[in-house]
Amino acid sequence: MTMRLYTYWRSSASYRVRIAINYKSIDVEHCFVNLSPQASEQLAPEYAELNPQRLIPLLRDGDFTLHQSPAILEYLEELRPEPPLLPADARGRARVRALAAMICCEIHPLQNLRVTRYLQAELGCDQPAVQRWIRHFIDDGLRPIEVMLAGDPARGEFCHGSAPTLADVCLVPQLYNAVRHGCDLAQYPVLTRIRDACHALPAFRDAAPERQPDAV
Amino acid sequence: MTMRLYTYWRSSASYRVRIAINYKSIDVEHCFVNLSPQASEQLAPEYAELNPQRLIPLLRDGDFTLHQSPAILEYLEELRPEPPLLPADARGRARVRALAAMICCEIHPLQNLRVTRYLQAELGCDQPAVQRWIRHFIDDGLRPIEVMLAGDPARGEFCHGSAPTLADVCLVPQLYNAVRHGCDLAQYPVLTRIRDACHALPAFRDAAPERQPDAV
Repeated sequence: MTMRLYTYWRSSASYRVRIAINYKSIDVEHCFVNLSPQASEQLAPEYAELNPQRLIPLLRDGDFTLHQSPAILEYLEELRPEPPLLPADARGRARVRALAAMICCEIHPLQNLRVTRYLQAELGCDQPAVQRWIRHFIDDGLRPIEVMLAGDPARGEFCHGSAPTLADVCLVPQLYNAVRHGCDLAQYPVLTRIRDACHALPAFRDAAPERQPDAV
Repeated sequence: MTMRLYTYWRSSASYRVRIAINYKSIDVEHCFVNLSPQASEQLAPEYAELNPQRLIPLLRDGDFTLHQSPAILEYLEELRPEPPLLPADARGRARVRALAAMICCEIHPLQNLRVTRYLQAELGCDQPAVQRWIRHFIDDGLRPIEVMLAGDPARGEFCHGSAPTLADVCLVPQLYNAVRHGCDLAQYPVLTRIRDACHALPAFRDAAPERQPDAV
């Protein structure tokens, strides 16, 4: 039975999952959930029934429903271990998961829709103030990753060695967002080199927001 | 060689790791990093060298340094699989990791120190506004977890079945924070029952902030 991925072209967490699915050549049917303010399809009762948190991505595997991209990525890794997105050794896996968490737990949560809505509606932030907030926390999170990777012999062409891992799967969408919000990537020579190495792979390229059928 | 955990009594992410260490009876030396505004020991150059992100917890295992509590928890699980904090089946593991991510990626990042500092210093929020922010995002994150667990037959005495998992390891510190910030836990009968079941276990009780040697 084909798995289903509920996704939105611009969602950074969906982008992560798309990369992993492509990289592992998993056959998945895409269901598009339009998160744009005009549509807000994630708030529709039918979707809330699938996911009370009203977030995407969401993966359906038969009667099993799974949300939260870090959990989905680990699940896909267990289901389809080849090609791997986690290193073979425990310390390598830990290192990769820490890099992924630096993005998923420290950067991305501060720029999502419900946060920027609160900034505007409750704290009266105008659009420039919201953009400053977003850029501040993206840079605040990317800087230590650049520092750590710059000095780490475990880094290779990718975040960890010479093949992509879950760290790259999370990094590439985060850098996409950084550009979108006007951060200056010249601060991150190591990270941008890794991104460019990822973009040389079709799995990463084909997962890009602009290449999705629901992109506008 | 004994592992070292860099910890602070009130840090929610440290609290998670303390629970797992206790539950698995791992011998760990505690190094206390005082995060209070007066001390701010995480900003000292010696600590920044260990962890450029200047966050705790941090685990040292010989010459291996690991940060980010989700990565530390997975590493401890691999290193010391018994007693397990992840279910034996892939879907169970995915379910537990999704619950943990609902806390680690959606709730906790919005209440940490660097965020509340920005709210005050850059957006001019006063203390009551900061507290409203914190409570808003704790409740916003706990509500869907309550809804999901209430209707899920996989839930038992704990988040997943009849033994604690990483989901409980993340939930208990988050509920501690919810109380600390004045959220009304009466909204979460399922979650508070799970918390009480956890508190019946010494591993959880002994990891509580007030029981730490550095508590003030």
